[in-house]
Amino acid sequence: MTIMNRRFVLASRPTAATREDHFRLETVSLPELAPGQVLVRHHYLSLDPYMRGRMSDQKSYAAPQPLGEVMLGGTAGEVVASQSTNLVVGDRVVGMGGWQDYSVVADKAVRKVDVSPVPLSAYLGAVGMPGVTGWYGLHMICEPKAGETVAVSAASGAVGGVVGQLAKAKGCRVVGIAGGKPKCDYVTGELGFDACIDYKAAPDPAAFAAMLADATPAGIDGYFENVGGMILDAVLARMNAFGRIAICGMIAGYEGAPLPLAQPALILQSRLKVQGFIVSEQPAVWPKALAELGAGVASGAIKYRETVASGLDRAPAAFIGLLHGENFGKQLVKLI
Amino acid sequence: MTIMNRRFVLASRPTAATREDHFRLETVSLPELAPGQVLVRHHYLSLDPYMRGRMSDQKSYAAPQPLGEVMLGGTAGEVVASQSTNLVVGDRVVGMGGWQDYSVVADKAVRKVDVSPVPLSAYLGAVGMPGVTGWYGLHMICEPKAGETVAVSAASGAVGGVVGQLAKAKGCRVVGIAGGKPKCDYVTGELGFDACIDYKAAPDPAAFAAMLADATPAGIDGYFENVGGMILDAVLARMNAFGRIAICGMIAGYEGAPLPLAQPALILQSRLKVQGFIVSEQPAVWPKALAELGAGVASGAIKYRETVASGLDRAPAAFIGLLHGENFGKQLVKLI
Repeated sequence: MTIMNRRFVLASRPTAATREDHFRLETVSLPELAPGQVLVRHHYLSLDPYMRGRMSDQKSYAAPQPLGEVMLGGTAGEVVASQSTNLVVGDRVVGMGGWQDYSVVADKAVRKVDVSPVPLSAYLGAVGMPGVTGWYGLHMICEPKAGETVAVSAASGAVGGVVGQLAKAKGCRVVGIAGGKPKCDYVTGELGFDACIDYKAAPDPAAFAAMLADATPAGIDGYFENVGGMILDAVLARMNAFGRIAICGMIAGYEGAPLPLAQPALILQSRLKVQGFIVSEQPAVWPKALAELGAGVASGAIKYRETVASGLDRAPAAFIGLLHGENFGKQLVKLI
Repeated sequence: MTIMNRRFVLASRPTAATREDHFRLETVSLPELAPGQVLVRHHYLSLDPYMRGRMSDQKSYAAPQPLGEVMLGGTAGEVVASQSTNLVVGDRVVGMGGWQDYSVVADKAVRKVDVSPVPLSAYLGAVGMPGVTGWYGLHMICEPKAGETVAVSAASGAVGGVVGQLAKAKGCRVVGIAGGKPKCDYVTGELGFDACIDYKAAPDPAAFAAMLADATPAGIDGYFENVGGMILDAVLARMNAFGRIAICGMIAGYEGAPLPLAQPALILQSRLKVQGFIVSEQPAVWPKALAELGAGVASGAIKYRETVASGLDRAPAAFIGLLHGENFGKQLVKLI
């Protein structure tokens, strides 16, 4: 029996706003399995801001996504055929299967997961790359101490939500930044942040800076950045001496010209450490981080929210929505 | 006998370019010494870019210099009267005596130095605060490894010259940035840097970026920043993955509006660490750094150059010249 596989390839590179026609849907037959390979039926595709960088051929932390090849992306699914001695049909696995219904991969390219304590989709969010991203940036770069103030942008997102909850567990005052009252209400009400600033309610940068100052009366000691632009400018001016800033994302500038930083001299004046990172380059922390995050999600100590688009064909629109903050929590595409 | 002391106080705060009338020369009588105090006749006053920040009342790493009080500054001189059991007349000492001919200070506020291996003035430069500044930023933030490329701006200055020579001793390729051919010739010829870029020879930022690329064929791994502005923008784009940038100064923006950073997203894309510091907050490293720097200067391994203005009355003009890069090496004022 030939199984047909639907997949999205990169059709052309966006130079400003991403459009659906930058992607092309193809239907192809799947190859036979070679020894050691498995066929995975994807249940969920993860959509993440880093993909936008890969679509461009500008300098970035990774080689660009090749044109005409399957869009890269994290996936969670089920083994439906196996030529592996390590995985059997029915195993749930996560991997980098890409924007497609199926993938044929070496068994070593996927990781078997236990869906009894944690739902499968969580392995793409709080107990996956986004969760480890938050864990790494907070613990290894922001290094917060009890009593300090930690701020995080995109606070209701897959990464930001983990950052804030971990910082609360460390005994910090935690201030989120998010777009819109529903997200802010969720951040303070469900996730337990001490405050959340709705940047969309600020008519201009000065108003946002004033709102941030109100929410951070003792300044900011650790900041986890997902956004950049006006938000980073305002936070930089609120940083306390010897503050630490983890740069995880700058999504505000992904769809156009680079956004400048207004006052880099504050890095000196406040003796800040500003550090960029990408979590896939830090494999040493993953086991420890995943164990802590898995336990937190299983116990209910770590909460998260998902926005789930239905069907592979919805992936481009959902991805474009993600770039504009239309998702609420982790953006997934349900494929089955 | 009453000794009269000439001193410069801060008369008003510059909001853009510093002028001589921001300082006021006063002549006052000196108080009698209390027990434990010494009277120091200053031989040299150190002029340093950080003073410009103290003259402003904008947010900075230290309280502003008060109006009407003696301008702060490092001094090297000789004890000419003593009520101390630790120091005797004739001892050479360094301290923060300020812009004046004499100071009356507690013996603990100055440090006795040995002028047999090293000239007195060097204790204000390569074997003083500027030298330790270079030592700290290079070793503790840039952390260069043999074979890496290290760049430093204001390369012929008191700090930059030390940075580059220490980096060469670590086995790095060292590239300086300085203003004018004479400074660049000194940096490569006398100080032994591998290359030096004359930013004044670049007609525009793109030309400077091209010159920088030519001089750093393998990119830049460690950068020591004294200047900011166009230079920092260009360096950021040349940084290799996991590069480290020590922010010591941003003199290009001290005399006007803050200079933005064009592409802060590069901090993420290249996974950089960018860290500001002020060496007076790092007392733990001073003994080790001073010992190394003193030995280096005594042996001739560490070279330096001085620009010496004659007489206290020349201090304001010399300071303004420093802010515009008119000095060549360490800017001093000789007071006797």
